[in-house]
Amino acid sequence: MRHILSIVVINNAGVLGRVVGLFSRRGYNIDSLSVGTSEDQRYARITVSVQGDDQVVAQIQKQVAKLVDVQDVFELKPECAIFRELCLVKVEATAAARPDIFNVASVFRANIIDVSTKTITMELNGDLDKTNAFIELMKPYGILEIVRTGLAAIARGAEKAKI
Amino acid sequence: MRHILSIVVINNAGVLGRVVGLFSRRGYNIDSLSVGTSEDQRYARITVSVQGDDQVVAQIQKQVAKLVDVQDVFELKPECAIFRELCLVKVEATAAARPDIFNVASVFRANIIDVSTKTITMELNGDLDKTNAFIELMKPYGILEIVRTGLAAIARGAEKAKI
Repeated sequence: MRHILSIVVINNAGVLGRVVGLFSRRGYNIDSLSVGTSEDQRYARITVSVQGDDQVVAQIQKQVAKLVDVQDVFELKPECAIFRELCLVKVEATAAARPDIFNVASVFRANIIDVSTKTITMELNGDLDKTNAFIELMKPYGILEIVRTGLAAIARGAEKAKI
Repeated sequence: MRHILSIVVINNAGVLGRVVGLFSRRGYNIDSLSVGTSEDQRYARITVSVQGDDQVVAQIQKQVAKLVDVQDVFELKPECAIFRELCLVKVEATAAARPDIFNVASVFRANIIDVSTKTITMELNGDLDKTNAFIELMKPYGILEIVRTGLAAIARGAEKAKI
């Protein structure tokens, strides 16, 4: 089962290595990871999507919490959080195929960010299901490149991480 | 100076740890990092934003290329690539402040993804300048949380990574 962990860390060189190292040394399977600065420049926020049963994930949380420079770690559940990913997709597209691709992009509210004589590049925001559905629809045209940021997650309502 | 590196890796447990470990052991300053699956499920793609002069970054590239399970590593330059980040922002908002916030969000083409009695949560796609400008404009309302994915980068035109 997929679990989404949000980890607040002090913005020091090395802390990302410690967090990622803990996952890889213990063989925990990371689906995606994203990290960027938080509302306070001194802290970064890491979102990790990880596979495992509830017990394993509770164990991971405890171990991450013990690491140096980790401020807070908590799981965000789908019923009370929003998960989003940014996906950049480049497909083959002759001039003839362009209108079809533009139409599909428009339905998914994907933005066209680059057009060349042979390709179209689009950006799409969404949860995993939306992104995967979009990628499936683009496959027949010939996908050249996909770059995904990994999920970012935020609690609904007024909940906030401890910083 | 900021450099954006794109790294294609075989999707094994441990490879992300090796890449991140190389940066942290050598004290290279990572601004952001994102990782997700690529167009081929067997490979993941890591985008790293790193500070350093040209020589240092050339050195990093060589060292990353030598790591086990790294397939390709290359720098994406602003003039021939597109950089995008996804940013989730939660601000304090009473009913009276909502219209103002909705207006700013609309100008930046940010989407409202959650509204509670005291807060509004938005998602925004863009390059770093756009995201930072939006965050500046939101500060007076009271920012509660920011979650950023870190940059994702893709070459313009028909260029593609070696997979």
